[in-house]
Parts: sequence; C-alpha cells; structure tokens
Amino acid sequence: MSPPIVFYDIPSTLPNKSWSPNTLKTKYALNFKNIPFKIVWVEYPDIERVSKEIGAPPTSNKPDGRPHYTLPMIHDPSTGAVISDSSNIAAYLDATYPDTPRLLPEGTFGLFRAFEAAASALLTPVYPWALPASHSFLNPPSQDYFRSTREKSLGKTLEALVPTGEEGAAAWANFKAGFGKMDEWVRASGTGATYFMDKTPSYADIWIAGYVLWLKLVLPDKWEDMKTWHDGRWATLLRNMEKYEGVPE
Amino acid sequence: MSPPIVFYDIPSTLPNKSWSPNTLKTKYALNFKNIPFKIVWVEYPDIERVSKEIGAPPTSNKPDGRPHYTLPMIHDPSTGAVISDSSNIAAYLDATYPDTPRLLPEGTFGLFRAFEAAASALLTPVYPWALPASHSFLNPPSQDYFRSTREKSLGKTLEALVPTGEEGAAAWANFKAGFGKMDEWVRASGTGATYFMDKTPSYADIWIAGYVLWLKLVLPDKWEDMKTWHDGRWATLLRNMEKYEGVPE
Repeated sequence: MSPPIVFYDIPSTLPNKSWSPNTLKTKYALNFKNIPFKIVWVEYPDIERVSKEIGAPPTSNKPDGRPHYTLPMIHDPSTGAVISDSSNIAAYLDATYPDTPRLLPEGTFGLFRAFEAAASALLTPVYPWALPASHSFLNPPSQDYFRSTREKSLGKTLEALVPTGEEGAAAWANFKAGFGKMDEWVRASGTGATYFMDKTPSYADIWIAGYVLWLKLVLPDKWEDMKTWHDGRWATLLRNMEKYEGVPE
Repeated sequence: MSPPIVFYDIPSTLPNKSWSPNTLKTKYALNFKNIPFKIVWVEYPDIERVSKEIGAPPTSNKPDGRPHYTLPMIHDPSTGAVISDSSNIAAYLDATYPDTPRLLPEGTFGLFRAFEAAASALLTPVYPWALPASHSFLNPPSQDYFRSTREKSLGKTLEALVPTGEEGAAAWANFKAGFGKMDEWVRASGTGATYFMDKTPSYADIWIAGYVLWLKLVLPDKWEDMKTWHDGRWATLLRNMEKYEGVPE
C-alpha cells in the first residue's frame, strides 16, 4: 500500500480543527477519492517557512510583490510531488490516481476554472462577516498574523468590516442572490439535478461545499438562514458531503 | 425531411448581414448540429412586435421594468416550440435533436452557465468600442433605435463612450487580460488543448466565437491586435468555426 499523502492544513479551536474553505476542499477531495492521507497542522506564521522547506511554490504575490505561500498543500511520498492551491491539487489527484473516482470528468477542468471564477465573484459579499468570525476561532499565533495581514490590506479593523443595519441587510441579500445564481446553474444541469453536473457530484460541488461548511462553522447564526435557501439545497449538499469530512483512521 | 427551423436575426450592412454576437452563436450552433434553417431578418424596432406575434417570451426586463424582447429567437415548425435567448436555444437544440452533434456533453450545461457568467464579466471592457462600431453597420431604422436606447441607458452619446489616450490603453489591456484568463481555461482543460473542453469543440467555444467574430467584423483595426493574442488562439478559433458561418442552400 502507498504511504499516505501529507496534507498541510491550518488548525482552529473548532472540534475538527479544519475550518478554511480552501483546505476543506482538499480534505473532501482526498476522501472522495478514497486516497489515504495524514494531516500536518501549520499555524499561519509558519506557512511560508514550511512551504519553502518542502519546496511548495507560492500561489500568488502579496500586494508588495513578494511571493505569497498558502495552504492547502500536499506532499505525495509516492511520486515526490509537492502541490499547492486546492484546484491544482484536485487536478493532480485526478491525473495521478486515475483508478479512483474522478473529481472532474475528462475535458471539464477548463469549464471548472470558469466556474471557479464566476462562483468566487458571487462569494465576495460574505467576507466582511466571515473574516472576523474566522479570526475568532484561530489559535493565538494565527490570530495575530491573520489580524495584522488582513487589517493592513483592508485598511480597517476586522471588527469594523461587519456590515450592519440597512447596509448589512443589502449585503446579505446580495450574497443570497449569488447563491440563487448557483442554484440556477445546478437546475440548468438537468431535471431534478442535485449537483452542478446533474446527478453526479464533482469537484465543483466540493468547491462550494468547502465554502458552505466554512460558513456553517464560523457563522452558525447566519447558517440558520442559509440552510433554508433554495429548498435546502446547501444543507443537503453538506449532508451529502459529510462522509468526506473526516480523517482516515 | 423536417421543415427548416426559422431563425430570427438582426441585419446589418455587412456582407453576410449577421453581426450580433448573440445571433452569431445561434447560427454557429445550428450549422454545428447540421440542422436546416432559414433566416428571417428583423430590424431592432420590430423585435418586440415580431416576438409577440410568434409567442416568444421576453428574455429580461428593461430598466423601467417592462419586458425586454431580444434576438436571437427560433421557431421550430417540427415541434411548434418558440425559444428566445441563445443559450436557451442551445439547450433546446441538444435536447430536441439528440442524434446531431452535441453542443455540450450531458450534464455540463450548469458548468457552461457558470462559464457564461465568468466570460461575460471579462468581455465588458470592449463595449465602449464595440457599441458605437456596431451602430455604424446597422440599417437606418435599427440605427435610430440602437442609438436612442443605448444613449438613454448609458447617459452619454455613443461617440463619447470610446475610451482614448491612457484610459483607452488601460481598458484595452484589461480586455486583453480577460482573454488571457480564457486562454488559461483552455490550457487547463488538457495538454495542447484547442478548445474549452480540450480537443472537442463545444458550445463554450461557439459562445466565445460569436463575440470574436463580432469584434472582427465591427472593429477590424482592433482585430489586427486581437488575432495575435495567445499564440493566435482566437484567430484559430474563428478559422475552425468558419465552416459554421453560412446559411444552408
């Protein structure tokens, strides 16, 4: 049997520790494909050092131009590969483990990339709530790092981000409308469709489920509203994905 | 043999008359599926009346809330169906003519809808050039309608839209960057991919080709630049689609 994949995740004080939408996508993907893995927990201030140690490339540039290292990343001892960015990891797993369930059918990764761009744009209204809420569940070293980097790039305190009153109601309605668009995409895929590719779950569903689980975890009050949206589509999605949330024994 | 589908298009003074990105998508789609059709030409001021006469639904609402009727639309005498909106037409054709080449593989129409949302957002920077240029090729009744409706909704003359100087250079660079994203989607679909679904043309390619042909027709000077972008990907796309540009004899 192959040695397990090493999956680098960011811990929190939540029961399962995992909380980041991006690392949740990778955890779902590994379990969906039934690929054994073990988790290495990395606090925010250590991500750059650990990435360099294992030879993971940066995933973007910081506002000042320096390389930006992010989680998730994986190290696959069977191939020696080190991959960062959740969607790159998904593509790697499909290419490297062709005998496991596919995350995306052959030839659809380009359309998935477009889906990712469109869905990302629809998720932006929730960040003013979700960033401060995420911060509150981090461990102290990550809390300090998360607060100082986010406040520097946003130009305000995390607490000042949270929209209230009419502005808050409008932002929340806007966020719900974005999920309404995604609900239309599901429905466009086939009569009685459950997933973005009709009856078959794919990485597009895992991608959204990563965000939905994140919001359920860090914004439980908001989740009470979200879980009723679109005939409970997003609550059903999380229930269907629940079997992929754990860590192999 | 079935009677030809009636395809409603907006004429121009260009040699092939067709010019609208949305009606070009439907023309490509009908030819791609080898479905016989004939064109009925409708000038802008007549679209609402003709739509109501054949029972085509509006595709959106005008800024003031009234129903907005648009082309393309088709009437299929074999089934009695009347369909408006190019992507709805694509879905109808795949569902109704399963023995013709598929525009989108089973289960991918939802991902295509997400692609459409993401790609539409990337196309916005070109409208300030493309709207005035399109106007110049319309017939007089459509010219008057096009100018008055667009100028009313945009709050400026068509001529005042065209960005110049540094602003123009930045908008054009932004537009090119959008096609750069789309080039990445193609490349993400497979090694040496030609299309958004790797080696196989789909409605995603037809959708983009409708816009690219429109820009080639109405902005020939800008096309001299565009056709060199991304190793000539967009020029290659139009060449590959050329066989679907005509009208069946």
